[in-house]
Amino acid sequence: MRRIVTLLTDFGTADGYVGEMKGVLLSLVDDVEIIDITHDIPPQDVDRARLTLARVWRRFPKGSIHVVVVDPGVGSTRNALAVSSDDRFLVGPDNGVLSPALLTRAAQVIELPVLPTAAATFHGRDLFAPAAAALARGERLDSLGVLAREPIILRTPEAKRADDGSVVGEVIAVDHFGNAVTNLIALRGGVVEVNGTTVPIRRVYAEAEPGAPVAVVGSTGFIEIAVRDGDAATQLGISRGTKVVLGTRH
Amino acid sequence: MRRIVTLLTDFGTADGYVGEMKGVLLSLVDDVEIIDITHDIPPQDVDRARLTLARVWRRFPKGSIHVVVVDPGVGSTRNALAVSSDDRFLVGPDNGVLSPALLTRAAQVIELPVLPTAAATFHGRDLFAPAAAALARGERLDSLGVLAREPIILRTPEAKRADDGSVVGEVIAVDHFGNAVTNLIALRGGVVEVNGTTVPIRRVYAEAEPGAPVAVVGSTGFIEIAVRDGDAATQLGISRGTKVVLGTRH
Amino acid sequence: MRRIVTLLTDFGTADGYVGEMKGVLLSLVDDVEIIDITHDIPPQDVDRARLTLARVWRRFPKGSIHVVVVDPGVGSTRNALAVSSDDRFLVGPDNGVLSPALLTRAAQVIELPVLPTAAATFHGRDLFAPAAAALARGERLDSLGVLAREPIILRTPEAKRADDGSVVGEVIAVDHFGNAVTNLIALRGGVVEVNGTTVPIRRVYAEAEPGAPVAVVGSTGFIEIAVRDGDAATQLGISRGTKVVLGTRH
Repeated sequence: MRRIVTLLTDFGTADGYVGEMKGVLLSLVDDVEIIDITHDIPPQDVDRARLTLARVWRRFPKGSIHVVVVDPGVGSTRNALAVSSDDRFLVGPDNGVLSPALLTRAAQVIELPVLPTAAATFHGRDLFAPAAAALARGERLDSLGVLAREPIILRTPEAKRADDGSVVGEVIAVDHFGNAVTNLIALRGGVVEVNGTTVPIRRVYAEAEPGAPVAVVGSTGFIEIAVRDGDAATQLGISRGTKVVLGTRH
Repeated sequence: MRRIVTLLTDFGTADGYVGEMKGVLLSLVDDVEIIDITHDIPPQDVDRARLTLARVWRRFPKGSIHVVVVDPGVGSTRNALAVSSDDRFLVGPDNGVLSPALLTRAAQVIELPVLPTAAATFHGRDLFAPAAAALARGERLDSLGVLAREPIILRTPEAKRADDGSVVGEVIAVDHFGNAVTNLIALRGGVVEVNGTTVPIRRVYAEAEPGAPVAVVGSTGFIEIAVRDGDAATQLGISRGTKVVLGTRH
Repeated sequence: MRRIVTLLTDFGTADGYVGEMKGVLLSLVDDVEIIDITHDIPPQDVDRARLTLARVWRRFPKGSIHVVVVDPGVGSTRNALAVSSDDRFLVGPDNGVLSPALLTRAAQVIELPVLPTAAATFHGRDLFAPAAAALARGERLDSLGVLAREPIILRTPEAKRADDGSVVGEVIAVDHFGNAVTNLIALRGGVVEVNGTTVPIRRVYAEAEPGAPVAVVGSTGFIEIAVRDGDAATQLGISRGTKVVLGTRH
């Protein structure tokens, strides 16, 4: 059976680091399908990678192996992990980036030994790709290392209800289109306040006039703030962490 | 038989939207080969995507399925299409982006029903990827929906002959190298006038001095304006729509 | 057997040039696995592509075919090459970009004939992809052309020992993270002088304080200058060619 191995990194592609990982995988496994998730995570942005992984990891068929390398602590004492969760596998550093798969009930988490031959700056090539290759060849997860005790888990902050009944949250990511993904949960109707602007919640972007701000329920169920045919983050001065308030005013 | 599904979007890759689409495809089809065309179309630039599709769609083997998602109107009343044309298949929004495949003699165009479970902001994942998967599994095109009546067709503007005998056209795209692709058809010799500069038509870039402007017949047969070892668009102030005039002066 | 064909270009992806090459390959070979190394080499930067190729080409399984198209001289009199080296194959322009594979003992180098039907601006599509397809179908290298006489070879400059016993080298590449790869060979301990800053050599990035410069032995064995959680090239004013001096001061 052809095994799927996905790659999610902040390496860019121009230097060949990703190419080296692909070469290692194809050299170690006869029948592997390599799928690029992204190599354009902003350098060392563990939280952005965590949210991207949250979107994708369970969309892939059971048995898929996700290699996630956003790893500012490479070569330090941070652990290296291999995970089985919801019938998928993941490998990556123990810095919270794998959190979406660590929060399932039956997640099994293994600490990978770091071989002395691994380059201290490039565990993607010398540690994580070989571990993914071992899993792709059908080796058992628990043969790869010892049980990890307390892997680091990062969580998306939750919106909170304020005394006046409004719900206060924040922007958790700004996407490629300049849309601001919040941690507010979908309601029908209402408005979102952000940086002094009141943005109406609509069903789709196209219900706004071109150039006007509009909030919609995004594809993960959180409310997103967009500008029709424009860039909401730039136009409204929004970045990760910007406060947003959910109101019922119309 | 392994079916090829290509992806052409303006999603970037960092947010995981493309990753979700790949996961859906691999989950719905056992034996599919996913090929990235690009995810770097400028956001919502339907015309740029149309020209890129024009270059690539017929280069792929018969039976290939092209998924094209540059879709400013997602969730609005715009239709969703599945197309059979010249023995390839295409799926994407009805906004003109699929035009290159709609202009063939025997194109068959189907309107896809939008399921109420589809996220209003992400038809790539919930509508187009599943439609491509159905085609990859061998389902008949006409089983996917009803005949589309008047799909939107966009055309590359044509150059025109002026009263003085010169041919007047425009720049239809600026490429990654800063080369300006025009809608002027190849002649032997002659010059192109653009923004007050007279650019000689040569056989290859290398016939110009380094840093000098040069026009050549590009790989689709249209004349392109380049600067040897440089960026013509920046150096000559060219953008999409810039007027160009084909002359015979030497 | 499924043959691996990798692509390494400066084309970007948005224009569809890479898509065309993929379509040509898939149309000419039944069972080919296309692997993207990168399409983000800075336009016409032959030397950057050479270094990226050096990293990746031997990581791939024997029989793999590398297509390398960074080709400022396309359409000129520069030759086109197909190479067999260390049981891998390579195709690309004769401008030095293939040097890493030309320096092995048993490299066999063939000059490809340029067909008159090849677009003078796009040998990637009309010459190199078809040559790679021929190799993937199992055609013999020497059936593709005649022996090349003196292919152009570029070398990474070597560091030199100065009269005072210090070793003087230079920055050969700045990577995606802003790390500066030098041509200095690893020692234990010591310092690197660059632009008036003395940078200590450590085992891993994480031994430096956040924001502080640090030198480490990179994954190809050369010393790299980094800034922990930062961009060394920007912070220290480093670019390709910047002089670096290896000292033993502590």
